[in-house]
Amino acid sequence: MSVVISIDAMGGDHAPSVVIDGIALSAVRHPDVKFKIFGRGNDVMPYLEKKTSLKDKYEFIHCDDIVPMDAKPAQVLRRSKQTSMWNMIGAVLEGTAHAAVSAGNTGALMAMSKLRLRMIDGISRPAIASLWPTRSGEAVMLDMGANVEATSDQLVEFAVMGAEYARILFDKKRPTIGILNVGTEAGKGNDVVKNADHFLKEHRDHIHFEYHGFVEGNDITKGTTDVIVTDGFTGNVALKTAEGTAQLIGGYLKAAILSNIWSKIGAWFARHSLAAFKEKIDPKRVNGGVFLGLSGLVVKSHGGTNALGFAAATDLSIDLAKGNIVEAIAKNITDARFF
Amino acid sequence: MSVVISIDAMGGDHAPSVVIDGIALSAVRHPDVKFKIFGRGNDVMPYLEKKTSLKDKYEFIHCDDIVPMDAKPAQVLRRSKQTSMWNMIGAVLEGTAHAAVSAGNTGALMAMSKLRLRMIDGISRPAIASLWPTRSGEAVMLDMGANVEATSDQLVEFAVMGAEYARILFDKKRPTIGILNVGTEAGKGNDVVKNADHFLKEHRDHIHFEYHGFVEGNDITKGTTDVIVTDGFTGNVALKTAEGTAQLIGGYLKAAILSNIWSKIGAWFARHSLAAFKEKIDPKRVNGGVFLGLSGLVVKSHGGTNALGFAAATDLSIDLAKGNIVEAIAKNITDARFF
Repeated sequence: MSVVISIDAMGGDHAPSVVIDGIALSAVRHPDVKFKIFGRGNDVMPYLEKKTSLKDKYEFIHCDDIVPMDAKPAQVLRRSKQTSMWNMIGAVLEGTAHAAVSAGNTGALMAMSKLRLRMIDGISRPAIASLWPTRSGEAVMLDMGANVEATSDQLVEFAVMGAEYARILFDKKRPTIGILNVGTEAGKGNDVVKNADHFLKEHRDHIHFEYHGFVEGNDITKGTTDVIVTDGFTGNVALKTAEGTAQLIGGYLKAAILSNIWSKIGAWFARHSLAAFKEKIDPKRVNGGVFLGLSGLVVKSHGGTNALGFAAATDLSIDLAKGNIVEAIAKNITDARFF
Repeated sequence: MSVVISIDAMGGDHAPSVVIDGIALSAVRHPDVKFKIFGRGNDVMPYLEKKTSLKDKYEFIHCDDIVPMDAKPAQVLRRSKQTSMWNMIGAVLEGTAHAAVSAGNTGALMAMSKLRLRMIDGISRPAIASLWPTRSGEAVMLDMGANVEATSDQLVEFAVMGAEYARILFDKKRPTIGILNVGTEAGKGNDVVKNADHFLKEHRDHIHFEYHGFVEGNDITKGTTDVIVTDGFTGNVALKTAEGTAQLIGGYLKAAILSNIWSKIGAWFARHSLAAFKEKIDPKRVNGGVFLGLSGLVVKSHGGTNALGFAAATDLSIDLAKGNIVEAIAKNITDARFF
C-alpha cells in the first residue's frame, strides 16, 4: 500500500519550517510515502522547494487561513473552513490520505477531528494515546487528556484501542494491558477501575489481548504491560509529572557536573555517553499523541517540537496507517461488544 | 515545649534495627526530644541498649503483638490490642506523646489512626501529605492516597490542611496553594476541581493562604506553589509515576557511564559530584507521609526505608509537633467554615 500522509504545515510554535524539515527527514526513512501538505503558499513554498528528499513526493494545497495556537476550540469551529487544519483532516475524510499530522492547537485539532471524522461505531469517546519509554522499550498509555473523566465502559474501549496500537507498533500478537490504579490487588481503587477490571477479567477468553490486571504509577516505566489504561485526567497529570521529574533530575545532574573542576573533567571524558544519555531522555524522541476512536487517523505532534520530533510523529502516523489501525479498532470493538 | 515522639519499633521491612538506628540519628539532631518506644522487648532491647545518643531519652513499652506488613486493615482491627502500632497511637490519644511514627502497614496504620484518634471537627476525611523536591526547595502535596475519591469540599479541606503543613515546615506566613488539573485556565477539568477552584477564589479574602489557582503535573517539581492539592487517586499515581521516572533515568545514566572506558574514567573524576547527585535524588531523603485531619499527629515512614529515611520521618514529626499542626488545622478549618 502506498501511504499518503496529510500534513498541517501551519501548526506548531515553529511552523512551517520545523514541519517541512520534519517531513523531509521522514521522507528519507520512508521513500514509499507521499504527502499532502496544507498551508499558506507564501509561508510554506520557500522551505518546501529546497527539500530534495521531498521532490515529487508531495502535493501542496494552499489554504488562506490558520488556526492560532491559543484559540479556543469553539472559536475555531466558527472560523472559516479555509484553515490548513480543517483541510488536512478533510483529506483523511475523503480518503485521499491515510493519516493526518499536526503540531497545532490540541483542543482545536480534537474538536475538528471529532466533528469531521466522527466516532468509530461502538466507541463513545476518543482518547489520546502516547508512547512512554520503559526499561525494556516502550509502552502505550491512554487516555492522556482527550476527556477529563471516564466510565468503566470507556476504560474497556480504551483497552481495546490501546491493544490495537500496541499490536501494530510492537508487532505483538497479544499485547498485555493494565489498568492504572493506586494498588495492584483487585478491590483497590474507585468503582470505575474496579468495574472495568471485573469486566475484563470476566471476558478474558473473548478479548484479543492479555489483561494483566491493575498496575501502579511506577509500573508505567517498568514496562510491566504494553498498554496502560487510565482516564484522561490521571493520564495527563501522570505525563506532566513525569516530564517535570525528568527536568528536575536533568537540572540536578547539570548542577552536579558544573559543581567543580573534577566533575567538569569527568564530563569531558564522558561527553559522548552523556550526549547519548541526553538524547535518550529527550521527550521529543517519542513525540506524537495519537487520537484513537475516530474513523480516521490523526496524530498530534507537540507544539514546541523540533524537526526530529515532527519526524517522529510523522513516522508514527505512517506505521499506524500501514497497520490499518482504524479498521483494526472497528473490528475489535465490535467483537468486544459481542459477548 | 519538650516534645515526646511515640515510635512503632516493629513496623517496616527492616524493623526493629532500622527504626532504632533512625531515632538514634534523630536524637543527635534533636537533643531536647524524648521517645516512647513500643515493641517486643526481646527484639528491640539488644539494639536500643547500644545507642548512646538515646541514653535517658526514651521509655520502652513492651507489646506482645505486631501488625504484619501484608495484613488487611480489617483483619488488623480485629486483632488483639497488644500490637506496637495500636499502643503507639494510644500514647498520642492519651496526650503522653505529641506525634507517632511508624514504618508499618499503611492501610492498618490509617485504619487504626482513624479509629483511635477520630477526625478534627469540620474535616470529613483524613489525607496523606508528602514532601516533593522542587527546583527551588520542597512542596507539600496531598492527598497521596488516603482516599480514592474526593469531593470539592474535601479538596478545600485539603487546601486548609496543606497550608498549615507548609506554614510550619517552610516558615511562610501565607503559603501558596494550587489545585492539580489538566490545564491552568479556570473552566478546565472536571466538576470537582472546578467547584473547589470557584470556592477558593470566591473566599480569597477569608482564607489564610494565597490561592494560586490550577497547576499542572509539571508544576509540582517546578515549585510553582508551596502546596499542591489533589484527590488520593491522582496523587498516588503522580507520586509513583515520578518514582518510576526517576528510576528509569537513573538506569539510563548508569548504563551511559558503563557504556565505555572513557565514560568510566569520566565518572571516576566526577565521583564526588555523582555521589552528591545520587543522594539528592534518593527518595529516602524526603521520607514521611503525614496523616492530616486526625486529632493527633501520625507520620508514616516508607516501609522499605533505611535508618536515614526513618530519621527524616522522625525529624518531620518533631517539626510538625513543635508547630502544633493539629491545633492549627482545627483553628483554621473552623475559620474556613465561618464565611
